[in-house]
Amino acid sequence: MVGGGQLARMTHQAAIALGQSLRVLAADENDAAALVAADVTIGHYTDLEALTAFAKTVDVLTFDHEHVPGEHLLVLAMNDDTPIRPGPDALAFAQNKLVMRERLSAEDYPCPPFAEVSDVDDVLKFGAQHSWPVVLKAATGGYDGKGVWMLDSDAEARSLVPELLAAGTQLMVERRVEMRRELCALVARSPFGQGAAWPVVETVQKDGINTEVLAPAPGLTARKVDEAQDLALRIANALGVVGVLAVELFDTDGGLVINELAMRPHNSGHWTMDGSRTSQFEQHLRAVLDYPLGSTELLAPTVMANVLGAPVTPQMSPDERLHHLFARFPEARVHLYGKGERPGRKLGHVNFVGQDVPELRRRATLSAHWLSHAEWPDGYDIHGKER
Amino acid sequence: MVGGGQLARMTHQAAIALGQSLRVLAADENDAAALVAADVTIGHYTDLEALTAFAKTVDVLTFDHEHVPGEHLLVLAMNDDTPIRPGPDALAFAQNKLVMRERLSAEDYPCPPFAEVSDVDDVLKFGAQHSWPVVLKAATGGYDGKGVWMLDSDAEARSLVPELLAAGTQLMVERRVEMRRELCALVARSPFGQGAAWPVVETVQKDGINTEVLAPAPGLTARKVDEAQDLALRIANALGVVGVLAVELFDTDGGLVINELAMRPHNSGHWTMDGSRTSQFEQHLRAVLDYPLGSTELLAPTVMANVLGAPVTPQMSPDERLHHLFARFPEARVHLYGKGERPGRKLGHVNFVGQDVPELRRRATLSAHWLSHAEWPDGYDIHGKER
Repeated sequence: MVGGGQLARMTHQAAIALGQSLRVLAADENDAAALVAADVTIGHYTDLEALTAFAKTVDVLTFDHEHVPGEHLLVLAMNDDTPIRPGPDALAFAQNKLVMRERLSAEDYPCPPFAEVSDVDDVLKFGAQHSWPVVLKAATGGYDGKGVWMLDSDAEARSLVPELLAAGTQLMVERRVEMRRELCALVARSPFGQGAAWPVVETVQKDGINTEVLAPAPGLTARKVDEAQDLALRIANALGVVGVLAVELFDTDGGLVINELAMRPHNSGHWTMDGSRTSQFEQHLRAVLDYPLGSTELLAPTVMANVLGAPVTPQMSPDERLHHLFARFPEARVHLYGKGERPGRKLGHVNFVGQDVPELRRRATLSAHWLSHAEWPDGYDIHGKER
Repeated sequence: MVGGGQLARMTHQAAIALGQSLRVLAADENDAAALVAADVTIGHYTDLEALTAFAKTVDVLTFDHEHVPGEHLLVLAMNDDTPIRPGPDALAFAQNKLVMRERLSAEDYPCPPFAEVSDVDDVLKFGAQHSWPVVLKAATGGYDGKGVWMLDSDAEARSLVPELLAAGTQLMVERRVEMRRELCALVARSPFGQGAAWPVVETVQKDGINTEVLAPAPGLTARKVDEAQDLALRIANALGVVGVLAVELFDTDGGLVINELAMRPHNSGHWTMDGSRTSQFEQHLRAVLDYPLGSTELLAPTVMANVLGAPVTPQMSPDERLHHLFARFPEARVHLYGKGERPGRKLGHVNFVGQDVPELRRRATLSAHWLSHAEWPDGYDIHGKER
């Protein structure tokens, strides 16, 4: 696996059960996966030489992010027999949002109106036609709300767009979608073409960062579940994806609209580690290793909350915080990434599995907040009873 | 963790979720845990120097087996501040069956009549008093049926006992227990004294090796469940166990009788990886690291079957066998240990979780047999429909 972040870390956990050990190309020996995997090569994903040498040592190459330069992938695919899964042709659609929009719109998948931006006038024209605000996006490299700007007016476009273009950022503009909520359809596809879909989930964002996932999406009609799963499976097939594909969706009055694609285990699928028969990490491996896919059965409703670094790192040690969390919620399923604390950084996630979804949400968000802030938003005091 | 077998391998998986990485003292770089853990020291558990050096590098020492010599543990405990969990005093009762029987009998826990054997006459006298057959046991070092002999007569005792004594084997003799089935009560205890009990399971043995575990034990009355859990928790407390304690039990007409103790994650608890809220591996770590214990809730009835090396290693590769298994049973939860195949060797296990226990058993035993023998005992043929 190229990339040594938390996705590689959790994929290694899954690899162990399959009798394997994940070989990781990590940029740094303190990367989340490098801390726990037996077989780590240090090298950067933008370094073609490092990639080439790494590819020669593995049976199949896969990724924990979509940032390996497309031209490197094409060179790897041409010069080496090692299968790349997903392949460069498929990955291009997860790497470049403009390429993705062009392809999916051409095949009549539901996308918002969009345009390429080579000039600020393209944005002004698009704003006049579709009405403000509009969404400006960097075509490549964005994540967690980075590379996305909401433009309210001509004036805002004039102040931002020329600067970004001058910096060499490839830009596109989209109509802002009026939505009820965000959903995600997570599927997997094997090289053989077998597909498997997990229950469709609702994702909750704050400042562009996913904070919570509700599995399955509460109150979603069976028709919309079918539609979302069908959409994701058809896209996986059309683009020749191998591995996990996340299709981020807007749930709108007019139906489902596609937001973004990711071709790897995805934050919206972390709930599967405790809430589904087969986790997204095992499933990604099964697809990439060309095994038949596993059952995506829901074990019980699950709520996942991300542990995001607090603005100020608390004095209480992470270890002590975990201690208190386990004391309050012995049923919490905690997954930590071994990363240093930084504001907004994804440090881990917590799953709660059960039947009472509002209570699961309450516990998951309390737990995630506690683990990063060392404070209980509901005023809970573990020593309260003794006072 | 001292020892690099499959228990250490699966403990490492659990450690990753807690934001940790297990440091392993493995005898060989190809040991099951050494293949997957980032932090491996090569050294033998009988080598006091290796143990001492290893203990100095860790925050707390624990074990994946009970074979570290007791005198080494005492030296470690005296010379080093590193906590040893479970401690030497507790471990002594898992290391030596005679010591265990003496202590538990003295405290009136249900044990079969037993006697120390310093001479063949001790066995003959015991046989005459309790009637044949009797069970002869090596006090230390036995596992998976090794170190246990059923003696049917004076003659058998005379032919075997002197030879074993001459070889330096410490021996004891027990009354053979007439039983309905074997059970296991798995609990954990923290240094703080917190206890947690999983549902009591039924274990199925063939030739002294555990082949199947049914969780929970079918048809066990609530009163017997309580009794078994209570017994195990009280023993954990009485012996000062820290970590997981497995109390193997005989279910007899006269009630529960204690067979053996293990103070570590145990084969009878492998089902917890998929069938309980908290796995025995995470729980062992939580106890050893002095975290509050996790919920031992049963998610659904679970059947575990061990994958034991076949008498003749099949031609079909393990990889291809796994492929076929996943094709037939997409819901199988497979855990492989990365070990080379040898007859009777524990290579992995398979869990099936659901409601229909006879069907779970059927699938688990079929799967385990298939993975080692590359043959379906029920004659299933994946290509059958095409013919």
